[in-house]
Amino acid sequence: MALPVAWILDKKHVLIVGGGEVASQRIQSLLPTDVARISLVSPSTSSKVRNLVASDARILHIDRAFDDNDVTGSDPPDMVLTAVDDVDQSRHIVSLCRAQHIPINAADMPPECDFYFGSIIRRGPLQILVSTNGNGPKLANIIRTRIEAQLPDNVAGAIENVGLLRKRLRERAPGVGGELSKRRMRWMTDFCTVWQMDDLATLDASMMNQLLDKHWDNMSIPPPPSTSLRRRLHEFISTESLLPFASGIVIGASIAFAALRVRYR
Amino acid sequence: MALPVAWILDKKHVLIVGGGEVASQRIQSLLPTDVARISLVSPSTSSKVRNLVASDARILHIDRAFDDNDVTGSDPPDMVLTAVDDVDQSRHIVSLCRAQHIPINAADMPPECDFYFGSIIRRGPLQILVSTNGNGPKLANIIRTRIEAQLPDNVAGAIENVGLLRKRLRERAPGVGGELSKRRMRWMTDFCTVWQMDDLATLDASMMNQLLDKHWDNMSIPPPPSTSLRRRLHEFISTESLLPFASGIVIGASIAFAALRVRYR
Repeated sequence: MALPVAWILDKKHVLIVGGGEVASQRIQSLLPTDVARISLVSPSTSSKVRNLVASDARILHIDRAFDDNDVTGSDPPDMVLTAVDDVDQSRHIVSLCRAQHIPINAADMPPECDFYFGSIIRRGPLQILVSTNGNGPKLANIIRTRIEAQLPDNVAGAIENVGLLRKRLRERAPGVGGELSKRRMRWMTDFCTVWQMDDLATLDASMMNQLLDKHWDNMSIPPPPSTSLRRRLHEFISTESLLPFASGIVIGASIAFAALRVRYR
Repeated sequence: MALPVAWILDKKHVLIVGGGEVASQRIQSLLPTDVARISLVSPSTSSKVRNLVASDARILHIDRAFDDNDVTGSDPPDMVLTAVDDVDQSRHIVSLCRAQHIPINAADMPPECDFYFGSIIRRGPLQILVSTNGNGPKLANIIRTRIEAQLPDNVAGAIENVGLLRKRLRERAPGVGGELSKRRMRWMTDFCTVWQMDDLATLDASMMNQLLDKHWDNMSIPPPPSTSLRRRLHEFISTESLLPFASGIVIGASIAFAALRVRYR
């Protein structure tokens, strides 16, 4: 079992070796991150890879075969992804990276990897990684799709707002570590427990200021904005349970009609 | 935005600096992985940390303050996690690691980290990481709990079985790369698409052999084991929709009674 983590690529340089299907998948995994630079070394590229390279100024296509210098030279990458069919070349690149302590993922060669990719869901600042530890990429995909369908619609907005509120709170009560840091964490935790996802998604700048003005000093949590009947109903009868609910009505009515028919016949 | 990945710790040595609450959280994140060695450097430890150290032979407690040699010496770690309150010490350890290209997570100092921890769900070989990119740890936790509640009960068994089937298939049709590798991938993908999670969870060794004997050569996918009425019903009316279904029956029956009353009065 590997350790799932979120790898920070801010200010980092990633080298991709290869220009085919896997290379385009790797680029697509990287583009939503704040990676600083991607170098793609390959003498040939698919049209998909060319389109991706053209779409983002952070990607540089180096139009030649891999050279040891790409890893051992004066501009070493912080992470390497091989995406070539040539198993021996891939193994050679792995050994170069290993010697330099550069983390590497070698496509289709799990035992040579420092880390695996998985199926990822992204919704604003939320990222969910589904990994089956190499047991079944397709199943990871199926599970990802299921989770995606069940995520609340406003989850991205709720998280963004909580992030903003945290930032404002840190500006108001600054400092790292110690009691204050714990107090901030406790208030935020209590707040996110009492307010539901839907409530958090409705927060705006003036509500945040009001909240902090009135409730931070005395460590209280106000009740969430009044829950509308429509939302309560929606919580009770979700999209998934609409059909069972409707068929319940039909079944109930039919039973009643049948029972009464027998009685009044 | 960071890149969520599964970091492989097999054969790796992780150094934890600190012995309090965060240190025990870090140990708990690491123990389910196949990390080879954990060194914990701290002159003081909480009882929780001591219990964890005693519970697993892979953890070695080094009972003294951190020494530069722990990172720069002859037995350098492959990953470092600081879990100390002292911001300056944490920063110093970060700079040592940075110079050696050793990935580091410094607790409570996001800008100094190479990677973040997130909320993790584990079910057998399945791992799901929920990360809000530092916007709200509590929300990550709430989302994790929701996802956890909605996972199929037999998801771990299904993934384990698919992993075994893939292994058997690779033994039967060995080789890395090229057409064969693509053919194997296609058959497995089709199989996991046609068979549902519940079906996959019922696979056993003799079923797997039969499957491969009869269906691999001609690239066919047999229909899944006959779906029982009970399961079809369960799929239609899930635990979550039972209440709406039942109330539908009551509402339907009431309407029918009321309507008939008016008519037959």
